[in-house]
Amino acid sequence: MTSPFVRACRGEPVPYTPVWFMRQAGRSLPEYHRVRAGIPMLDSCTRPELVAEITMQPLRRYDVDAAVLFSDIVVPLRAIGVDVDIKPGVGPVVDRPFRDASDLARLRPLEPGDVPYITEAVGSLVGELGERPLIGFAGGPFTLASYLIEGGPSKNHDRTKAMMYGDPGLWHGLLGALAGIAISFLRVQVAAGASAVQLFDSWVGAVSPQDYRRSILPHTSRIFAALEPAGVPRIHFGVGTGELLGLLGEAGADVVGVDWRVPLDEAARRAGPGKALQGNLDPAVLLAPWEVIESRARDVLARGRGAGGHVFNLGHGVLPETDPGTLARLADLVHAASARTPA
Amino acid sequence: MTSPFVRACRGEPVPYTPVWFMRQAGRSLPEYHRVRAGIPMLDSCTRPELVAEITMQPLRRYDVDAAVLFSDIVVPLRAIGVDVDIKPGVGPVVDRPFRDASDLARLRPLEPGDVPYITEAVGSLVGELGERPLIGFAGGPFTLASYLIEGGPSKNHDRTKAMMYGDPGLWHGLLGALAGIAISFLRVQVAAGASAVQLFDSWVGAVSPQDYRRSILPHTSRIFAALEPAGVPRIHFGVGTGELLGLLGEAGADVVGVDWRVPLDEAARRAGPGKALQGNLDPAVLLAPWEVIESRARDVLARGRGAGGHVFNLGHGVLPETDPGTLARLADLVHAASARTPA
Repeated sequence: MTSPFVRACRGEPVPYTPVWFMRQAGRSLPEYHRVRAGIPMLDSCTRPELVAEITMQPLRRYDVDAAVLFSDIVVPLRAIGVDVDIKPGVGPVVDRPFRDASDLARLRPLEPGDVPYITEAVGSLVGELGERPLIGFAGGPFTLASYLIEGGPSKNHDRTKAMMYGDPGLWHGLLGALAGIAISFLRVQVAAGASAVQLFDSWVGAVSPQDYRRSILPHTSRIFAALEPAGVPRIHFGVGTGELLGLLGEAGADVVGVDWRVPLDEAARRAGPGKALQGNLDPAVLLAPWEVIESRARDVLARGRGAGGHVFNLGHGVLPETDPGTLARLADLVHAASARTPA
Repeated sequence: MTSPFVRACRGEPVPYTPVWFMRQAGRSLPEYHRVRAGIPMLDSCTRPELVAEITMQPLRRYDVDAAVLFSDIVVPLRAIGVDVDIKPGVGPVVDRPFRDASDLARLRPLEPGDVPYITEAVGSLVGELGERPLIGFAGGPFTLASYLIEGGPSKNHDRTKAMMYGDPGLWHGLLGALAGIAISFLRVQVAAGASAVQLFDSWVGAVSPQDYRRSILPHTSRIFAALEPAGVPRIHFGVGTGELLGLLGEAGADVVGVDWRVPLDEAARRAGPGKALQGNLDPAVLLAPWEVIESRARDVLARGRGAGGHVFNLGHGVLPETDPGTLARLADLVHAASARTPA
């Protein structure tokens, strides 16, 4: 039988609401810090045995319904030679930010042979996971463009938007290249056995709906259309995208990820019929006493019931200071509270 | 006759759509950098003649319909002895962050005598401005609480939310104290002649509607109710508050500020009848070529027509790299494009 996670993504009946946590693998786990000790972030993403180990770590603690590949959205950029690195405590930084058309030449297409470690890690994980699905992912074009243009994390994405508004030709050239890279990167993961893919356009919530439609949608639509023949569920997520939920679905996602700001019943209305939802407990709620967490988690489940499928998740990644014991308890609660009695 | 700005705030007929720009005074003006040279930010806020000069600078360049007092949301905290400073390139920093109930003792009530420079600056500005309104302001309780608890600017407001969820008693004590300070600070400005007040709860968009209602609304409602007898329009603004627009109005604001993410026609629906709107051109649009700016500004005007009053503004503060010439041209465009033919 198809896994509850994939069934929920497709809006099919499920025995219980499946759950996983964005950033479940990584910074909040002590065993992660142990195996990563002394290894730079992007190096760790190119060692298949380490990727597989880190991906599996949360599954030994939590009864989650899916694993998510341990990687980073800038991995494919580094793989084609972009001078990007991840600076601890800062985030992705690019030595030579993108400024004009000459920079487009630095974005050659990604070939499967550029990321052999991904193919190897996914293949070994799929063997180990058995029936449990592995989610692959790629960075969305706005978010990657912002890192390339700003040269690092940005509060307002000023330069990025200035290019989007002021030089549409260059903008569409850049986003087209990034979309092509996302397509290749996701195809590599699906070919190696990933059961679903998520496009993380983390910062796209910084743009208005009309800008999304004009300047970004053509590229995300192309990504999702290219993945359609693969037949795996496609998830689309960004933070602060309350006004964009309809467009994120319209781009071709099967599942629209929702942050904690929009209650899921309202999100279902905005995403429209036929879309499953993923989310949306505020990650900061996990720092509260258990009674608060339980009450909020039950509220998320109740509001998600009217959607065309619901995958329980946080509204953004697990915060580093989260107690892993809390996540374990939360996964169990989600399953217990949502269990359907067989007819 | 009452000024177009105040009339628009009240939903009364106006000869044209009034306009001002959040952060019109300050960082984007070369003459501001000249008069501030060598003077720390918070010191500059305590010199009445400097406050008045900086407040007036944009009015010499732009045909805006209101001046906004040059100050900072942490000024009243500093005035009661909190160890807060503004670090250039960083923002407000607090030496000893707030952690427990013992910290509440550090938040004594604000007395008018604590901020004589505000009374003096507002008084002299009102004399100089004549019919042109002066907008006073205060920081909203969530935003000030976040600076106090996190000790500085924060990406996710983790500790703030942890206190909000985990220690409601302490939370309400803190927000109650901050609301009291906001009330006193706004009353000082109104008593000295300010024609309107804006509550800047800049980061409150980080919370969900249910958290706003439970943990913040009681305090913002108290602030707006306390200002009601003053009879001046009350504006309420935060970034990323698409899901909170109804609640920002419900708190008692006459005017709901909207960032650029929610089109004003949709914002009017959410804010509900009887509320005027303020906003909402993306500040980053001002970095684009003029044709883009004009087209977006006209779109904002068109969408604002259905609201119960519209004050044109940006969706957040003027970005430092904005060309002042662009703002001058934009103010003129707003007036020309919105001029009503007398009946």
